[in-house]
Amino acid sequence: MSPHFTLDEARALDMHDPLRAFRERFILPEEIVYLDGNSLGALPARSAARLREAVENEWGRGLIRSWNLHDWIGAPQRAGALIAPLIGAKASEVVVADSTSQNLFKLIVSAIRAAGGRGAVLTEAGNFPTDLYIAEGAVGLFGDCTLKVVPTDDLPAAIDDDVAVLVLTHVHYKTGARHDMAALTAAAQAKGALVIWDLSHSAGAIAVDLNGCNADMAIGCGYKYLNGGPGAPAFLFVAERHQLHLSPATTGWMGHAAPFQFRDDYQPAPGISRFLCGTPPVIALAALEESLGIFAEVDQVLLADKSALMCDLLIALVEERCAGFGFELITPRNPAARGSHVSFAHDEAHAICQALIARGVIGDFRAPDVLRFGCTPLYCGFEDIWRAVDTLQMVMATRAWDSPEHQLRQRVT
Amino acid sequence: MSPHFTLDEARALDMHDPLRAFRERFILPEEIVYLDGNSLGALPARSAARLREAVENEWGRGLIRSWNLHDWIGAPQRAGALIAPLIGAKASEVVVADSTSQNLFKLIVSAIRAAGGRGAVLTEAGNFPTDLYIAEGAVGLFGDCTLKVVPTDDLPAAIDDDVAVLVLTHVHYKTGARHDMAALTAAAQAKGALVIWDLSHSAGAIAVDLNGCNADMAIGCGYKYLNGGPGAPAFLFVAERHQLHLSPATTGWMGHAAPFQFRDDYQPAPGISRFLCGTPPVIALAALEESLGIFAEVDQVLLADKSALMCDLLIALVEERCAGFGFELITPRNPAARGSHVSFAHDEAHAICQALIARGVIGDFRAPDVLRFGCTPLYCGFEDIWRAVDTLQMVMATRAWDSPEHQLRQRVT
Repeated sequence: MSPHFTLDEARALDMHDPLRAFRERFILPEEIVYLDGNSLGALPARSAARLREAVENEWGRGLIRSWNLHDWIGAPQRAGALIAPLIGAKASEVVVADSTSQNLFKLIVSAIRAAGGRGAVLTEAGNFPTDLYIAEGAVGLFGDCTLKVVPTDDLPAAIDDDVAVLVLTHVHYKTGARHDMAALTAAAQAKGALVIWDLSHSAGAIAVDLNGCNADMAIGCGYKYLNGGPGAPAFLFVAERHQLHLSPATTGWMGHAAPFQFRDDYQPAPGISRFLCGTPPVIALAALEESLGIFAEVDQVLLADKSALMCDLLIALVEERCAGFGFELITPRNPAARGSHVSFAHDEAHAICQALIARGVIGDFRAPDVLRFGCTPLYCGFEDIWRAVDTLQMVMATRAWDSPEHQLRQRVT
Repeated sequence: MSPHFTLDEARALDMHDPLRAFRERFILPEEIVYLDGNSLGALPARSAARLREAVENEWGRGLIRSWNLHDWIGAPQRAGALIAPLIGAKASEVVVADSTSQNLFKLIVSAIRAAGGRGAVLTEAGNFPTDLYIAEGAVGLFGDCTLKVVPTDDLPAAIDDDVAVLVLTHVHYKTGARHDMAALTAAAQAKGALVIWDLSHSAGAIAVDLNGCNADMAIGCGYKYLNGGPGAPAFLFVAERHQLHLSPATTGWMGHAAPFQFRDDYQPAPGISRFLCGTPPVIALAALEESLGIFAEVDQVLLADKSALMCDLLIALVEERCAGFGFELITPRNPAARGSHVSFAHDEAHAICQALIARGVIGDFRAPDVLRFGCTPLYCGFEDIWRAVDTLQMVMATRAWDSPEHQLRQRVT
């Protein structure tokens, strides 16, 4: 990478980007640089149209008839089948339902019940909060079960014969560090434990190969790289070999073998559908299904390659142009060891983030001191990266992040 | 009621209906009579517009900024506050989240944990299936807990000192029979049990007074009489006096006291928000919140009165014009003992329902033999009722529900 990487060079990369055409599928306000697709994916143009159709025609005109007429009832499985190729799974192993939190609860409870007396759920300190909270809540249901939260480096040693299930987020929401899915899965399985992978910061941006890693279970978010819209329903994966002997406690009617026979007794569906619970969120599913349709046209290898190159460029540009401003890279430099966002620690991260947003560069802040930039390969470009760092340099060089009051105080004291 | 109630008389009732203007707030296809709002509420015109705004402007242009800019994060509580007056609750006692199934799971688990060793969850046979299934799933988490499913008439006697929680649907989905909420709540509480009321077939159509009945907990559906759209998020109510000592096991980040401090340990929110779980479904909540706004203008007494009169008219017309066709009314005649739908048992209910739908009269069928008509007081009119029964009479008189094959077989055998 050139030490003086220019805007023209960034534009040249965009021009030769084989995924460039996908940017046109998204509504992106012209005045902003959006580097927060890892928190909320952008709106696909077709999703807006699809939602109008789902609301105004299917709900408004079709009314109750649309459950059959437009196969609303099949949406959880259809959306799951569209996610499957993005995560190395079979269509019959993925459904869309509820939230990531609820899905994680289902799988942890299932895993504990299948573990035959093993008494621990293991996870890492600093995992995404809802994963930790849900694990704590699930464990609390079982008198003989404990939650073990250990530092990342201690994970391998902490996998012992008492661990029922290891719960890990594939790509860390803050640092962007990526776990070695194959190695940790094998290590846990060697001790007789199951593993649940949270793919919220992976699916749709980097290569994920669940079955290639012999993964047991996974969950993930619909509103980040999958662009399903704010609060979109989430997905879950259960390897075929586990489906029949796992039973989530949230046995709602959509998980029943025959939900419309209205029987009094629960009989779980024979496959992945047993992990459904309540009535599918039709409108939200329509948005997600439409956005997932885009991925069917995307070469996953190109997507992962572009993600790596964008992150590389961002790191190089910040280190070149913002040297001396106090940024500490906390994301791994090795593309295989990270996801699709890049984070820097900085004492003034919050104020800097606000100053960037005020200038149209949208990244985000994570407490206490992390400035995070998501490089969404599907619709972001290399010019976006260049502009973001150009603005960051300006903000830092002019201390634009600093309030006039604070600057004055610095000078007079 | 006249024994020869005419179309003109129905129209006169509509003309004098003080709620008539609300019909114009809904998109109702002209060619149909919609008597299935108890299964899926109609589309409010403003909801369609609100969804376009939420999708195209808030998500599309605002992107991640809309969490604050448009207060997406406050939607569960805002929607809850709009539902509260419809069910006799305080705003601080209701939130919108997840599905009815998931919400019921949260409350049953909370109730069992708070019950201090009581070993039974009591419900009635023939309750809505997902309520039974969820109760079965929740009970299965506790080694010392059993699910008691008894016939309706045996409920009072079955409430004993071992019951942790009584789970009942206020208005039965099939028969429309309404439980005496005050009496059953008092009976359960006298034995030291809690009660969870499922208001799915009540809220938004008939009078519900949770606090007037000293109710403990309730759940309900967003997509029936509340018109939130297919698969809309659901609501839950927990009386203020119980909130601090109940803990659902699904401890997601939105139930945390400080979700955006990203701490590792779970600390429940001090009030009703502890019953939230994952990220709010923003788009779906926007639709529900908009439709709930309509109810703020509706006199609840007028709504309940109209519901009763519509159901009375439907019963009278069917008994007058469809006598001898084999319909058996299974809904109570006393308005105070029923909800807002009327059901008839008939051996050919399924075929009759299909014949009605083919002629633009949309009610629904519930296995094995129930024909169900929802009288939604907010947007249905008396002419709708008249037309539905007029069509039903024609279908029955001409045996239009019967297939030509079947008719032929009847004649030759």
